[in-house]
Amino acid sequence: MNSFFDYKTVELTEKNGLPALKILDQTLLPNKVEYLELNTPESIFDAIYKLRVRGAPAIGVAAGYAVYVLTAIEADRLEKETGAETSPELMTFLDETADYLISARPTAVNLEWAVKRVVKAAKAAEKDFNFKAVTGGITEHGVGLNLRVVRALKEEAAAIHTEDIEMCRKIGENGLELLKPGMGILTHCNAGALATSGIGTALAPIYCGHEKGYDFKVYADETRPLLQGARLTSWEMSRAGVDVTLICDNMASTVMKQGKIQAVITGADRIAANGDAANKIGTSGVAILAKEYGIPFYVAAPSSTIDESCESGVDIVIEERPGEEIYKAWYEKPMAPEGVKTFNPAFDVTDHKYIAGIITEKGIWRP
Amino acid sequence: MNSFFDYKTVELTEKNGLPALKILDQTLLPNKVEYLELNTPESIFDAIYKLRVRGAPAIGVAAGYAVYVLTAIEADRLEKETGAETSPELMTFLDETADYLISARPTAVNLEWAVKRVVKAAKAAEKDFNFKAVTGGITEHGVGLNLRVVRALKEEAAAIHTEDIEMCRKIGENGLELLKPGMGILTHCNAGALATSGIGTALAPIYCGHEKGYDFKVYADETRPLLQGARLTSWEMSRAGVDVTLICDNMASTVMKQGKIQAVITGADRIAANGDAANKIGTSGVAILAKEYGIPFYVAAPSSTIDESCESGVDIVIEERPGEEIYKAWYEKPMAPEGVKTFNPAFDVTDHKYIAGIITEKGIWRP
Repeated sequence: MNSFFDYKTVELTEKNGLPALKILDQTLLPNKVEYLELNTPESIFDAIYKLRVRGAPAIGVAAGYAVYVLTAIEADRLEKETGAETSPELMTFLDETADYLISARPTAVNLEWAVKRVVKAAKAAEKDFNFKAVTGGITEHGVGLNLRVVRALKEEAAAIHTEDIEMCRKIGENGLELLKPGMGILTHCNAGALATSGIGTALAPIYCGHEKGYDFKVYADETRPLLQGARLTSWEMSRAGVDVTLICDNMASTVMKQGKIQAVITGADRIAANGDAANKIGTSGVAILAKEYGIPFYVAAPSSTIDESCESGVDIVIEERPGEEIYKAWYEKPMAPEGVKTFNPAFDVTDHKYIAGIITEKGIWRP
Repeated sequence: MNSFFDYKTVELTEKNGLPALKILDQTLLPNKVEYLELNTPESIFDAIYKLRVRGAPAIGVAAGYAVYVLTAIEADRLEKETGAETSPELMTFLDETADYLISARPTAVNLEWAVKRVVKAAKAAEKDFNFKAVTGGITEHGVGLNLRVVRALKEEAAAIHTEDIEMCRKIGENGLELLKPGMGILTHCNAGALATSGIGTALAPIYCGHEKGYDFKVYADETRPLLQGARLTSWEMSRAGVDVTLICDNMASTVMKQGKIQAVITGADRIAANGDAANKIGTSGVAILAKEYGIPFYVAAPSSTIDESCESGVDIVIEERPGEEIYKAWYEKPMAPEGVKTFNPAFDVTDHKYIAGIITEKGIWRP
C-alpha cells in the first residue's frame, strides 16, 4: 500500500487478545468511513454476502484471514474448555467453517480459491504433525496440533495478502508502460484499491503514475445500477489525490469525442482463452466507443483471471440480477413505474477485437 | 391522441367560468398522476421553469394556451373594473406576459416561437380592429378590441395544438414504413406523448405500429442523470399497452449484441444542415453502438428542428448542467463523495454518419 491511501480495505487485527478480521465497510461509502472488526462466522459470512468487502482479490485476502481468525478463536476455546493442545475436532471445525464461508458467494472464484488454499496448508501441517508423532521425528517441543494448524493458516493467509499487494504493484508497473504523463484515462466500475488489498488492478497503473507525478486526468463512469464508479472509484481516487471527474455512463462518448481521453482501463472478472473479457455491465459499450474514437482500450487483471478452459466469451454465463436494482435501489421513491419490466445483466463480455492489451502481473498480453 | 392514452399532457380547461391551462405534472411521474389547472402568470412560469411540462412541442402548445388564458382573464378583470370592452392596456399586458413567459426557459426555442406566434395573431386582430374603427369598415356589432384579441389568441393557440397532433401522427406514419412487426426497438430519453400534445415524435412510429398490432418489443434506456427514460418513457409506453423493458444506459451494448434490437429511434433537440443531431446526452454513444452491431439508428423530429443556419454539429453549443444532478438528485444520500468533480453535459451531438434516416412529418431525410 502507498502513503496516499489513508485506509486499508482488509487487514488483520486483534480483539480481546485474539485475532480479528478488520474490513472497511464498502456499503457505507462514500458517506461513512467505518471499519468492522469481525470474529464470528456469521458476521464474516454477512460481510462477504452483503458486499461489505468486495472485489475478487480483496475477497480472497479477507477469506484467507477469516479462516485463520475463526480457527484460532476455536482453538483458544477448545484449550480453555479441555486444556488440550491437540484437538482432532479442530479439523472438523475447519472444514465446516470453510464450507460455510464459501457458501456466502458461491460464484466468487477467489473466495473458494483462498479458503481452499489456507485449508490445504492447515491439512499439510496436520499431516506433518501426525507423521512426526508416529515416526517420532523431531518436532517442536510442547507445540500441539492446534497451534501448528493455526500458525499454518496465518502464514498462508499472510502469503495471499502479500502476493495480492505484489500482484497489484506489478500490474501497475506493467500498465504504466502504456501511459504517458498528462493523459486522460477513462475507467468503468471499481477495480481499484478497494477491490484489492493493494493498489488495485485497473487503477494500479494510474496510482503508479500518480506516484511519479504523471498528472493523469481520470474520468470515472458512475456505473449503473450499483454505482461502484460514483461510490467507490471517485472516492478512493480523490482521497489519493488523483484528479478524478465523475460522469454518467452515457457521457463516455462525449468525453472521448472532446479529446479528453487517451486510454481506457477497466478490470475483468473472467477472461476467456481468446481474450474476450467479462466485466461489469457497460464495459463492452465503452470498448466499442473507444475503438470508434481510436482510443486504446486496456483490461487489467491478475493472470489468474484468464480461464484457459473457457474458449471464448460465448461460454461465459452472464448473471442476471433483480430489476429493483434499476428502478428502486438508492432512490427515495421508485424512479420508474412499480412493476415495470426490466432487464438487468450484471456483466457483459467485451470481444477481444476491441481490446488493445490485457495487463497482468506477468506482462501485457495482446490477444 | 389515441384511445390508449388515458391522460393528456396539455389541454385547455375552465376554472370559475374562465379558461385555464391544464397540464400533467411530469415532475411527479411515475409515482403520482396529478394535473395542475393553472391561471396565473407565476404558476405557469413555474410549471415551465421546473419542467412540470417539458418536451419542445408540449412546451409550445402550453405556451400558446398560456398567453390566451392569462390575457382572457386580464380582459375579464378589466371589463369588470372599467366596464370597457376596448382597453389599450390589454396590449401592454399581452407584451409583458409574453416576455415573462419566454424568460422561464430562454433556450427553449419552441417556447419563444409559440408565444411570438400567438402574440402576432393578437396584434393582427388589434390592427384589423383599429383599421376598421378608423375607416368605418364593417365590424362585428358590439364586439370590442378585448374580445377580438382574446379570440385571436385562442384560435392561434388551438391551431398550434392541432398542428402538433398532426405533426406527431405524420412522423408516426412516416417512421412506421421503416419498421416491421415484432421488431425490438431501443429508444433513449423521452420523445414520447409526454413531450408533445400528440403521440410523440420518436415514439410515434411505435404507437402507430402498436395500433396495427405490430407487437414491438421496446427497450427504454433509463437516461441518466435525470432518468426521463425510467420515469417517463417506461411509464407512458406501459400505460399504452406497449411491451417496454427498462434498462440502464450502459446495457444498450448487451441488448444489441444479444439480437434483441432491430432499430433505434430517438428524438432530437436540434439538427444541423448536414444532418448532425443534438439530443439528450448518451444519444451519440447509442448511435455508435448501433452502427457497430449493424442496426439502423433513426432520429425522429419535427422538420422545424432542422436548423439550416447551423452548418454542422460543431456549431451546436452543448449546455452543461450542475454536477449535483449526477451525485445527488433522486438519492436519499449522496452517492458520490461530496464535492467530487463532475462533468455533466446535458446533450451530445450524433454525427450524421451514424444516422440511417431522419424521420420528420414531411418524410424521411437521409443525410
